[in-house]
Amino acid sequence: MATETLPSVFNKHYLPCSLLLLLFTNVLYCQQFIVPFKTPADCGVEEFYDISSMSCVRCGSNQLRSITLTVCRTGYRTVTTDKASITCQQCPTDQPAVTKDGFGCIRCPGSISDDGKCLCPADTVLERDVNGNFLDEAKCEACNGNIPALSVPNTFGDCERCQASFINTSCVCSSPNILAGGLCFPPGILAPNANPNVNYAQLKFSVQSAWFVKNLYSSAAACLVFSNLTACQALGNMCVLNMHSFSGVSNDACGLFNAIFRSKAAMSSTHDISYRSNLPWLYYGDEPGLAGRVLQTDPVPVSFSFRGKNKNTDIKLLTAVYDVGGQFVRWEAIGRGNLQLCPDTAVKKSAALSFGTAYKEGCDLSVADLLENHPTPLFYDVFMDLGGGENRKLLPLPTLVYNQQYSGRFINQMKNWYLSRRMFVVDTLSGREKSVSLLPKVIRVATSVKIFQLVPRTQQGQVFPPLMIITYSDLLITDVNSQTVSQVTFAVEYEMDQSDARMKTDTALGVLGGLAVLYSLLKTVSWKRRIGSTLIDAGTMFKFLLFYSGDLANVFFVVTAGTGLYWLIFYKAQQFVSVLLPLPAQEEQFVTYIGCAFSLKFLHKLVLQVSVDIFLIDWERPRSKASGDSKRDPVPVSIWRTYFVANEWNEIQTFRKISPTFQIMAVLFFLEVVGFSNLALRDPWSNLSRSSQAYAPSYSLILRYGLATSLWICIGLLQIFFTVIYEHFFEDKIRQFVDLCSISNISVLLLSHRCFGYYIHGRSVHGHADTNMEEMNNNLKREAESLCGQRGLLPNTDIQTFQVSLTNHLRSHYERIREPLSRQRSGPSRLMDTSVANPFEQNIRAYHTMNHFLGSIIDHAHPDMDYIVKDKLMFERVIGMEFLEPTEKSIFYNEAHSFSNVLFYGNEATLLIFDTLFFCVVDLGSQSFVLAAVLTYVQQMIFGLIRNFLGRKNLVNKTLVDERFLI
Amino acid sequence: MATETLPSVFNKHYLPCSLLLLLFTNVLYCQQFIVPFKTPADCGVEEFYDISSMSCVRCGSNQLRSITLTVCRTGYRTVTTDKASITCQQCPTDQPAVTKDGFGCIRCPGSISDDGKCLCPADTVLERDVNGNFLDEAKCEACNGNIPALSVPNTFGDCERCQASFINTSCVCSSPNILAGGLCFPPGILAPNANPNVNYAQLKFSVQSAWFVKNLYSSAAACLVFSNLTACQALGNMCVLNMHSFSGVSNDACGLFNAIFRSKAAMSSTHDISYRSNLPWLYYGDEPGLAGRVLQTDPVPVSFSFRGKNKNTDIKLLTAVYDVGGQFVRWEAIGRGNLQLCPDTAVKKSAALSFGTAYKEGCDLSVADLLENHPTPLFYDVFMDLGGGENRKLLPLPTLVYNQQYSGRFINQMKNWYLSRRMFVVDTLSGREKSVSLLPKVIRVATSVKIFQLVPRTQQGQVFPPLMIITYSDLLITDVNSQTVSQVTFAVEYEMDQSDARMKTDTALGVLGGLAVLYSLLKTVSWKRRIGSTLIDAGTMFKFLLFYSGDLANVFFVVTAGTGLYWLIFYKAQQFVSVLLPLPAQEEQFVTYIGCAFSLKFLHKLVLQVSVDIFLIDWERPRSKASGDSKRDPVPVSIWRTYFVANEWNEIQTFRKISPTFQIMAVLFFLEVVGFSNLALRDPWSNLSRSSQAYAPSYSLILRYGLATSLWICIGLLQIFFTVIYEHFFEDKIRQFVDLCSISNISVLLLSHRCFGYYIHGRSVHGHADTNMEEMNNNLKREAESLCGQRGLLPNTDIQTFQVSLTNHLRSHYERIREPLSRQRSGPSRLMDTSVANPFEQNIRAYHTMNHFLGSIIDHAHPDMDYIVKDKLMFERVIGMEFLEPTEKSIFYNEAHSFSNVLFYGNEATLLIFDTLFFCVVDLGSQSFVLAAVLTYVQQMIFGLIRNFLGRKNLVNKTLVDERFLI
Repeated sequence: MATETLPSVFNKHYLPCSLLLLLFTNVLYCQQFIVPFKTPADCGVEEFYDISSMSCVRCGSNQLRSITLTVCRTGYRTVTTDKASITCQQCPTDQPAVTKDGFGCIRCPGSISDDGKCLCPADTVLERDVNGNFLDEAKCEACNGNIPALSVPNTFGDCERCQASFINTSCVCSSPNILAGGLCFPPGILAPNANPNVNYAQLKFSVQSAWFVKNLYSSAAACLVFSNLTACQALGNMCVLNMHSFSGVSNDACGLFNAIFRSKAAMSSTHDISYRSNLPWLYYGDEPGLAGRVLQTDPVPVSFSFRGKNKNTDIKLLTAVYDVGGQFVRWEAIGRGNLQLCPDTAVKKSAALSFGTAYKEGCDLSVADLLENHPTPLFYDVFMDLGGGENRKLLPLPTLVYNQQYSGRFINQMKNWYLSRRMFVVDTLSGREKSVSLLPKVIRVATSVKIFQLVPRTQQGQVFPPLMIITYSDLLITDVNSQTVSQVTFAVEYEMDQSDARMKTDTALGVLGGLAVLYSLLKTVSWKRRIGSTLIDAGTMFKFLLFYSGDLANVFFVVTAGTGLYWLIFYKAQQFVSVLLPLPAQEEQFVTYIGCAFSLKFLHKLVLQVSVDIFLIDWERPRSKASGDSKRDPVPVSIWRTYFVANEWNEIQTFRKISPTFQIMAVLFFLEVVGFSNLALRDPWSNLSRSSQAYAPSYSLILRYGLATSLWICIGLLQIFFTVIYEHFFEDKIRQFVDLCSISNISVLLLSHRCFGYYIHGRSVHGHADTNMEEMNNNLKREAESLCGQRGLLPNTDIQTFQVSLTNHLRSHYERIREPLSRQRSGPSRLMDTSVANPFEQNIRAYHTMNHFLGSIIDHAHPDMDYIVKDKLMFERVIGMEFLEPTEKSIFYNEAHSFSNVLFYGNEATLLIFDTLFFCVVDLGSQSFVLAAVLTYVQQMIFGLIRNFLGRKNLVNKTLVDERFLI
Repeated sequence: MATETLPSVFNKHYLPCSLLLLLFTNVLYCQQFIVPFKTPADCGVEEFYDISSMSCVRCGSNQLRSITLTVCRTGYRTVTTDKASITCQQCPTDQPAVTKDGFGCIRCPGSISDDGKCLCPADTVLERDVNGNFLDEAKCEACNGNIPALSVPNTFGDCERCQASFINTSCVCSSPNILAGGLCFPPGILAPNANPNVNYAQLKFSVQSAWFVKNLYSSAAACLVFSNLTACQALGNMCVLNMHSFSGVSNDACGLFNAIFRSKAAMSSTHDISYRSNLPWLYYGDEPGLAGRVLQTDPVPVSFSFRGKNKNTDIKLLTAVYDVGGQFVRWEAIGRGNLQLCPDTAVKKSAALSFGTAYKEGCDLSVADLLENHPTPLFYDVFMDLGGGENRKLLPLPTLVYNQQYSGRFINQMKNWYLSRRMFVVDTLSGREKSVSLLPKVIRVATSVKIFQLVPRTQQGQVFPPLMIITYSDLLITDVNSQTVSQVTFAVEYEMDQSDARMKTDTALGVLGGLAVLYSLLKTVSWKRRIGSTLIDAGTMFKFLLFYSGDLANVFFVVTAGTGLYWLIFYKAQQFVSVLLPLPAQEEQFVTYIGCAFSLKFLHKLVLQVSVDIFLIDWERPRSKASGDSKRDPVPVSIWRTYFVANEWNEIQTFRKISPTFQIMAVLFFLEVVGFSNLALRDPWSNLSRSSQAYAPSYSLILRYGLATSLWICIGLLQIFFTVIYEHFFEDKIRQFVDLCSISNISVLLLSHRCFGYYIHGRSVHGHADTNMEEMNNNLKREAESLCGQRGLLPNTDIQTFQVSLTNHLRSHYERIREPLSRQRSGPSRLMDTSVANPFEQNIRAYHTMNHFLGSIIDHAHPDMDYIVKDKLMFERVIGMEFLEPTEKSIFYNEAHSFSNVLFYGNEATLLIFDTLFFCVVDLGSQSFVLAAVLTYVQQMIFGLIRNFLGRKNLVNKTLVDERFLI
């Protein structure tokens, strides 16, 4: 609206002042109209404050100011006029005093007061007769205080009946009776030395409170003698202001309360609920174990349910409100701000009493506001409304005052709780020292109000009686305007006995941990066999520990992810209250487990191997040999096919089944954009979008973890699923590599262990691959039309990839040939760089020898190092270990594409779990999914780079392909 | 605390009830203590409410309930006892009435009232004599209402002076005087038909307001006759309650106000400020253009500054508060909740008056709360505190009431504004129909209070007088407990005349747009020359438009990014108030520009070409030829080098200078984790982390855009910088490709236009590359030791990459050879798939011919298609166009690595700008950086996949390399 209409202001009326002067004679607005700032306090004695012009205006003659109006000066009477101002006229000397209404002059029987009125000590002053006519001289009349008149003068000059507590015969509270608080008490009912000091233990001093001075003794006496309802309440309130604390010796408020209670209920030593005789209910009693019985014996007869037609999430709490004088004020519902000091919208405040929502609000409050809004304390007796239509029932809720003292000890900060009732929120009254109208020296605020509910595992939505836990804080007032009370909180917490869940978790961990030991042992044995060693040495132990750390990490991951998912599903989807989230403190163990999983997995991942032995067997034979004249130098076989294969191998090293970046982005999208992160809030609702007006509870670490892992695993599985489909129908990098081997006439032998590895049979079915485009295309076409043999190692099969178990003999032979290569790597080769020709030629020779040797092995040309091809047993596959030991013949197992185990591709599970854990650990530490995503990306990048770098170095060393071709 | 002590409750005291029964005789807590819910209203007539036990207790005999206490039944006197309860005694028949204090019985002179007291119509009742002794019979005494007594009975039974407004001789307001509101007015001063109806225009009905009925006439009369200060204020307040509206005919509040104003200020027709004679200041007057003069003539004499030692950001607003009766209540500072109805912490509320912070808070308020907290309306006269120590000065602020009506027209919703003063926030009073103590029928709430400040472009921190814009809403009360007033807002807005900035932006756009036309023309000319065509046809126009869209997008991007950065820097870093953000409505144009930039860039990016003509020239000649016997079939030259080169080319197609994913992650990290996003908040502070307690203003779209583009460009440039360093010292994919060409003895000819393209000279210096590992390594070593020639096209140079301008002749020749290849692509080739042999052989032949042809061209073997090598001029490089037209000889320009122009690598700027724009557009639409990041990633992925797919298809078609080798 402003923007629409603004142009008119901008354009039409913006004229310079000089021009305006010509146009208008009224040039008022060329100069801003500015007024001086005056408050009523700024005005002098003979000025009054004109509320219309906000200025001090001089009073008329003979007048004085009275706040914002004027009155006549002493000795002047008011003469009415029709106008607003008054006129004053001096009284004649024979009638020097002014009447009480100010309009007349009168003679006094006695002296004249300072303000010019007649003075009659302790008597009434009569200025008019019964018909309202002025007397010439005022009369002083004494009121008859004796029976039956029993009258005393009131402020209007009348005689009035005196207070009913005065002794029957007279309005004078004669000795030995005691006059206190306007009441007259018989002597000896209470020691008159009631202690009016309020002790501020946190500040280590006490204040003689004006309120206590004035009211403590009289309330106690009136309560004891007259059983006065409000006096008893007022006494109780003073005890509450003392935070239910009593010293046991001095006659402080709680001491008096207890003394009166005992005297009234002499037969019972406990604070019985049903018998109270006008005293308020402040204490539950001090039997050992009482707190536990009150809080955990019977659940509240109200059942809560989050969903369905019996949905009921409103905790209805009512409070009876009393003022400090003991008057009952009203019934109020809690949740609309009475106990919640922090300002917030009604919607957010009412979320506090929505069952299952972990609520906490906190803020700093300005002392000035507190003083203004809480001039006197209010007292709250809290009940739970059990409903019931006509016969509504209330359950009184116990209160635990954290600061409650008994003879200087904080009894509620120890193991045994002493429950009480009645609380206040802000007390600015008892800290006022000299007068109740002065500023307080100290104020006391309930800085922490916590409603604490124990929930039994009944699955029926039951709850034990809630407990209010109050912590008061004392604040010394030094500067009202700038001081604040920091961190005033109101919280609602729910707790369930989690020992059961914890035990289950620990059991699962134990069982699975045992299995992990077994599995790791198995792996170690398998490893020992594969490296062809039987000795149990330190290396074996180390290897076992590595395996074990990986497996244990998996166990931790499965257990924590399962737990997280369990909480997520059961907490967010429950109809009745069957599970409740652990409190933040109880989540610690869980976080420890996650930490274990992560660090173990990290250890495990670090050694993902990059030291595999790889050799590319080139089957290509020189052409000229084929054409007969073997004497001449054969045309060299081109190395480019080898380069091509090595290059591709280099590229697929860090190729993964899923796109890790897409994974991160998808997780981030679901969490932050779609709003899944709202599922991790500590309330039982499962909607993804929250109104900005609604209350947002804090996050639960367990739910965040459960959410992140489930999303991560789900999206990962989906990606793998689609990858499988894509690979089946479109492009499969792994199969492409095998095909490339076949077409380029190159076999690949990968030895991940000393005597175990993988073999990709790449012998071309066309005999030659080192040929021109025409022939290549023809070859491909022939193969497409099935005009040539199949690619498999065995005739008429097309199985090209194998797991191989080598005999020790074969391996030794292999190593002997490879010796020059490995020698070059180790040792001070850098020093020999100038004479590098020699080892290089050795290498080339070793390469050719190896090529020939391996080729002949595959061709069964070495009877002593022969091999057999067989299928692996299902069980062998499952446990990942071969039963047969290759003693005489090596064994080639038919296992399609299992060589990807030495690539990232074949270790997707490990990588995915590690990424998940990394993401979750960062998130648990920072509570920021975005940071977790960014760091996970960086981690993936770094690990990928390292793996690529190491893998490339290894490839260069093992295949002799120049690094420059691996681009 | 709870968790620490909880186990004790859990473990120690949890005993089953049955066991407890054995242990304790007091088994109270095995059964919950539940009380019925009773309120004082639930108690019957003969029950009183026991505030101690919260129950209804039967009264003693002859007693009745009086709220929470008991009194004696009618005709019974109270007999005092010492105890809490009272005893009642029936009065004797000769003294049947009870005295006023309830303790005595008395005889009445007249009748007895229903409650058993003596009745003296309009007289005082005397029960005691002047000394307080009871009379046997009460006396009725009439007060003397005539001069000089002028007394009337008061409630205490005394005669008291009557109101001063009554005519001097008697306390009776005798006809023709008019008695109104307890005052006596002379006749004829005001027509007595004052209109007490309050009109609720939004609800289309009016209410006869009890308050107006009672007070309107009397206030007006008292103001007019007695110039009574509070009466005048009260009248003004009623006018304010009517939202300053008057009909001009009926005697409503504002009509009366104006009539009195006119009668008091007969000589002046304007509402002069200095002359008001006790009337409040409500109107500024109705001269045309007055609003503009008030709001824009002089700046406020206070200067604001964000930084430095004169830092001053506090807008000090004071308000004089009046109650509905016209009493002045107090001075209050604004910003602590008086005008801000929404609950919030003091810190956040005070942020409203921090200069430069765009503040807006809104919430729904419950009607029940409003009724409780605002029983009567308060009225606010708002001033700006100009400071000045002793002589503090105030500047009255004008108010614009959006709902103000004049004869039924909403005058302030049109172009001309009528300013006023005084406002209220909640009015629950005037809607009360029968009595002011009943529930109101309608309430009126100021649902929008906006403080609107115009800031001149003075650079000195000045500001024009703020304007309060108020919008009231009426709400019909139907259900107090569930109704809410929705969207109550309080806002502070700043506006600066942005026409200057807009003009500058438009100028920049115009100038740069013109340049873009020129540049696009140049590009089109260059393109025409490069495709060897001179005809201007539709294609040319289309191409021009494409170029133009790209350049225009750049222009838009530069201008918007510059503007965004300008705002970001100048707004966030200014010391004085020199620039202010445009309001959200003013940002529209900016968003339009960004939209333009994005859509044009999108258009441009779509055609990033993937149809480049590529041919791989294999220099390798068969070996057998070299060894003499040319008769025999030569050993075929292996195609694998070509495969390798094609494969690498395929891989570098979408390779970019920067890592796009890293870019996204880094931007996201800085924005969301480091907290740069806080810089986009509409306040002048530039700290990255905000306290959760502090007020968070809304985001500015311009700042978000400026921030995102700056970050994106900065990180992009940083990445490019590090890429350049990395490429120089470690690995450069582009150089690697050129080296690969050299080593593999393969040249690459890329024709991006018909007669223009790039040439990578890859002829091996060793003559042969198709060789075994030994020779390859020897070759490499020889080259490293500079034992052979250099790789360049010209002897003794090493420049391998060129831009080529071909002659038309050469191109035609090229096309003729290539014909079979292109023919295969176009036309219904799929139908001929079965007889594919024929075209394939043609292809192979064409391939060999082309290989031979291009090789001979490079070798200068065709004199008619010769070429020259020259350097490009600097200016040619800058404008991207060749001056020489290749008419007779083709021209090879020395231009290192410029062939990357046909890759993503050479178009980094375009891609980066497009990504930036994409990110920003998504963010502007969704205000979510995370979503923008995710979608940008998806966009990059999709574009990359498409480009890769198309580029690969193109490569397959142009080089005849089988697609299966491009892995």
